[in-house]
Amino acid sequence: MPHETTRVAIIGAGPAGLLLSWALRDAGIDSIVIENRSQDYVLGRIRAGVLEQGSVETLTRLGLGDRLASEGLEHDGIFLQYAGERHNVNFKDLIGRTVTVYGQQQVVKDLVTAHEQAGSTIYYEAADVAVDDLTSTNPTVTFRHGGEQHTISADFVVGADGFHGICRASIPAADITLFDRSYPYAWLGILADVAPSSDELVYALHEDGFAMLSMRSPVVSRLYLQVDPADDIGNWSDARIWDSLQTRLGTDGWTLNEGPITDKSITPMRSFVASRLTYGNLFLVGDAGHIVPPTGAKGLNSAISDVTQLAAALTAFYSDDETLLGRYNDIALARQWRVQQFSRWMTEMLHTSPADEQTGAFDYRSQLGQLDYVTHSPLAQRMLAEQYTGLLL
Amino acid sequence: MPHETTRVAIIGAGPAGLLLSWALRDAGIDSIVIENRSQDYVLGRIRAGVLEQGSVETLTRLGLGDRLASEGLEHDGIFLQYAGERHNVNFKDLIGRTVTVYGQQQVVKDLVTAHEQAGSTIYYEAADVAVDDLTSTNPTVTFRHGGEQHTISADFVVGADGFHGICRASIPAADITLFDRSYPYAWLGILADVAPSSDELVYALHEDGFAMLSMRSPVVSRLYLQVDPADDIGNWSDARIWDSLQTRLGTDGWTLNEGPITDKSITPMRSFVASRLTYGNLFLVGDAGHIVPPTGAKGLNSAISDVTQLAAALTAFYSDDETLLGRYNDIALARQWRVQQFSRWMTEMLHTSPADEQTGAFDYRSQLGQLDYVTHSPLAQRMLAEQYTGLLL
Repeated sequence: MPHETTRVAIIGAGPAGLLLSWALRDAGIDSIVIENRSQDYVLGRIRAGVLEQGSVETLTRLGLGDRLASEGLEHDGIFLQYAGERHNVNFKDLIGRTVTVYGQQQVVKDLVTAHEQAGSTIYYEAADVAVDDLTSTNPTVTFRHGGEQHTISADFVVGADGFHGICRASIPAADITLFDRSYPYAWLGILADVAPSSDELVYALHEDGFAMLSMRSPVVSRLYLQVDPADDIGNWSDARIWDSLQTRLGTDGWTLNEGPITDKSITPMRSFVASRLTYGNLFLVGDAGHIVPPTGAKGLNSAISDVTQLAAALTAFYSDDETLLGRYNDIALARQWRVQQFSRWMTEMLHTSPADEQTGAFDYRSQLGQLDYVTHSPLAQRMLAEQYTGLLL
Repeated sequence: MPHETTRVAIIGAGPAGLLLSWALRDAGIDSIVIENRSQDYVLGRIRAGVLEQGSVETLTRLGLGDRLASEGLEHDGIFLQYAGERHNVNFKDLIGRTVTVYGQQQVVKDLVTAHEQAGSTIYYEAADVAVDDLTSTNPTVTFRHGGEQHTISADFVVGADGFHGICRASIPAADITLFDRSYPYAWLGILADVAPSSDELVYALHEDGFAMLSMRSPVVSRLYLQVDPADDIGNWSDARIWDSLQTRLGTDGWTLNEGPITDKSITPMRSFVASRLTYGNLFLVGDAGHIVPPTGAKGLNSAISDVTQLAAALTAFYSDDETLLGRYNDIALARQWRVQQFSRWMTEMLHTSPADEQTGAFDYRSQLGQLDYVTHSPLAQRMLAEQYTGLLL
């Protein structure tokens, strides 16, 4: 029955948990990461792919920027497409900031490699993970691993275990409220072995629904289609997917290159924020505390923002300054609600509402008016730029 | 059976119709106005009260600015209130533009006075008004007035007869689509004989719903409360109205002064745009072609914008340049959809959604995040300023 002691026990070895452990190590604070999945599973998850400039700066500052610098694709802006016309919004020209296309998978890979080289303690495939005594000064984490029952005593427990994780669920129901919103649409996402047909991301509103052209590398395209959340991926042959992408992304004089589809899946969209990110000595970061719809690419960036702030607060705590830790909840939530409204704004501007035919027809035209304004007002473009690149507080 | 001939027959003697007739007179183009209501009714209607800077400039240019200059209240900005805190957005500081509080009733009064002095032909209390031969070069208007059946032959007919008017209804149903959207809330508006308790308009989001403090003069306040569209004004005693206003508008150290309520009514909110504003030689202006929810005060200003553009187009037409008239539909509709998306944005940001408790709780917090962003980002403030003051194209 191994019993260990650490300063910070981190539940979850996704990007948030691994990055927090890495940032704490950088500050000389020891931590242990506990993950219920295997390392292969963690490394295989395909998720977001756009890093805000601030996220790139954070990763680079923590010594995780080498491969990001050589393989990440710096993007100066995006295209907004509607009524068959494509409009460039150039963040760099507008506000001097950029984003970088670099898959979440790659960020995780860099973190796993760094931790392995540093000899960090990470328990993968931990079973029956539970957290206890959260309101005491000595919370514990228990789990089974390699046939043994483990107990970890820590000063703090951090829930980086995602929406379905055990940490948020350990807060008594009476002490937490979950604010959430579902949407009447989902994203069908594909990976395809074909060079991206555009040098910048394309966000397109079409009468048939939203479509997006993105990329993971110079030879891998990532594309999305708005579909019904009740739809089944089995209904979408590769040919049907390409047909729909051609229709929704098509503009005069431009060609969408097709290639072998190597991955396809349908992901529902939701907005979710917990009313609190701290409970006693438990702190929630990333998806454990909040989820955004993927339009605007704020999920991973929000996790990195939480982690950056919490790492700074814990560092200050161990230098006898508890102020920042006391403010983590309020600051992270205030930032998150700004992120939420931006993500919802981008989402509702770019997706068709299938709900009601009458309202839908009005809404579609109202969205065209919004896109017309956003792509023609320099102020609106700059506002989009500052939120997309991450100047949110 | 009087038969008259004019260049432009204008249906409706509200602000749009009267202003168009006045602008055409200014350009030496004769017109006749036909209104089914009495002059007293037209003068008595209480409506919007905020003029964009461009609207003030238009009225002034047309010699209608004397009383507006002396009695209109120039406002440098507005307050946005949420979570019990009031935030000033100063349009003048942000973009050098202002708005002017001057009731629509006053604009109509100035127009009626001007037309009376000029001896314009305006038929009030015209019954059974009908328009015909709209696709010919010689459309006609028929109506009964003073016991006689009248016929007017014109080059053009202009529908300035509002949402329920006969002009839009004269376009064959197969040739027009109506895009509209209702909202799950309405405005209860009051006039009160009390000095306004704030020097600038206050738009407030409160958990109980939207509230607004506005004014008509230094001694008359205009206030609004979000209510259910099915609610009855009989349920709202003066005491209940003031109580709700005190709750929703209250902030520390500020007093809402109460006074005798001289008018109260409930108005539903809708968004509506016709798919076309021209049909043969019929042109629609103002509410006949489009309606916005009142948040953001775009109704009267949109009508003035339509009229300004149509007057210029007709003036050009009679100087042998048909180009502008041919473009009226597209330009006015493009502008209107931008106005629609702004009005909807302001409306949805500031009203609580009673529909679904779960979604409503998320939406309310998302709106707080939106207001937090708008009141703290200089770019977002400037974007609000440019749209509110009317720099829409």
